[in-house]
Amino acid sequence: MGINDFISSDDERLDKLLKFTAEIDKMTAVLRRTVLIDKSRRENDAEHSWHIAVMAMIFEEYFYTKVDIGRAVRMCVIHDLVEIYAGDTFAFDKAGNLDKEEREMAAADRLFSQLPDEQGKMIRSYWEEFDAMETDDARYAACMDRIQPLLHNTLTDGHTWVLGEATREDIEKREEPVRLYMPKVYEWIEKNIENGIKKGWIKNS
Amino acid sequence: MGINDFISSDDERLDKLLKFTAEIDKMTAVLRRTVLIDKSRRENDAEHSWHIAVMAMIFEEYFYTKVDIGRAVRMCVIHDLVEIYAGDTFAFDKAGNLDKEEREMAAADRLFSQLPDEQGKMIRSYWEEFDAMETDDARYAACMDRIQPLLHNTLTDGHTWVLGEATREDIEKREEPVRLYMPKVYEWIEKNIENGIKKGWIKNS
Repeated sequence: MGINDFISSDDERLDKLLKFTAEIDKMTAVLRRTVLIDKSRRENDAEHSWHIAVMAMIFEEYFYTKVDIGRAVRMCVIHDLVEIYAGDTFAFDKAGNLDKEEREMAAADRLFSQLPDEQGKMIRSYWEEFDAMETDDARYAACMDRIQPLLHNTLTDGHTWVLGEATREDIEKREEPVRLYMPKVYEWIEKNIENGIKKGWIKNS
Repeated sequence: MGINDFISSDDERLDKLLKFTAEIDKMTAVLRRTVLIDKSRRENDAEHSWHIAVMAMIFEEYFYTKVDIGRAVRMCVIHDLVEIYAGDTFAFDKAGNLDKEEREMAAADRLFSQLPDEQGKMIRSYWEEFDAMETDDARYAACMDRIQPLLHNTLTDGHTWVLGEATREDIEKREEPVRLYMPKVYEWIEKNIENGIKKGWIKNS
């Protein structure tokens, strides 16, 4: 029996919502380069998205201006959904990042069209807002998305820095939203970049 | 080097937030009885919490009244945090559910006290609201927490129903919030309970 045998009510909209819910369970199989803090295995997209959503609930006081946390948390939970089809693009993979936008746009079309129109447009709009990083809510969510992997790297011997042969400049560029919008947290990040260089995890470009 | 070598800024509040963020990464190791839809392995609490948070963004139209989705999504992401110390209690484990409240209360004291006071109280208050299921936002979040495992069971040969030797009554009791507050979704659930009985996954008590 396939999914259509189990999800077939007399309500097409409800069926779409249930099938979409089943489809996005695939986020648990999209592996990131980051490892869990206990180093047991690679982190997946569902775990990462959840982690930064909780962070968005508690780091508010370090952001440079007021944000709508409810909107930021929503962006955190959906920001990587397109990777179900586009795959995770490693932050320090320069070639992979060249066609990232194109791959993710195609994935978005494919994924969000599985929802009823209203929900598809709504989720897509949160995703586009997150990606554009032009609103404060999106900037705040983006900061969470930068702080979390850095925290993981710091606690796992610079795992993805070593893997990606990351330079100081690579990381500074990646962490720029934190420098701009969460300056106090960036002080802590700077200390960890220095430490990563001392340890040999980061190249002092 | 331990966590205190990496997280020690001149700001005690920031250190607490970063250490809490590292601590809750343990949610990825709290395994539920539910298996992923691809049946590859057991689902963990981080994945489950993320999954129902996305659901909370799209199922609104089936709820009996208007809700604040931003608040419901927050409850979804934090509702199982106490299981880091209390462990996941299997829904169909009657003995385990007897002392669940006590275990979770102790876990909440231990976990939320690691945050600065304001954040600790805020997260605890969302958790208590979710658990009491007395507000519409909490009822809606609870419905997501009931629909998701049922969907997984439906698509994985009744996995936890078979494991827990669940009866029709057990499941009806578990899904009661959906019956009360999302009647149209409950129609789909009833069909799946009937189907589960026919398949021998659920006991027709």
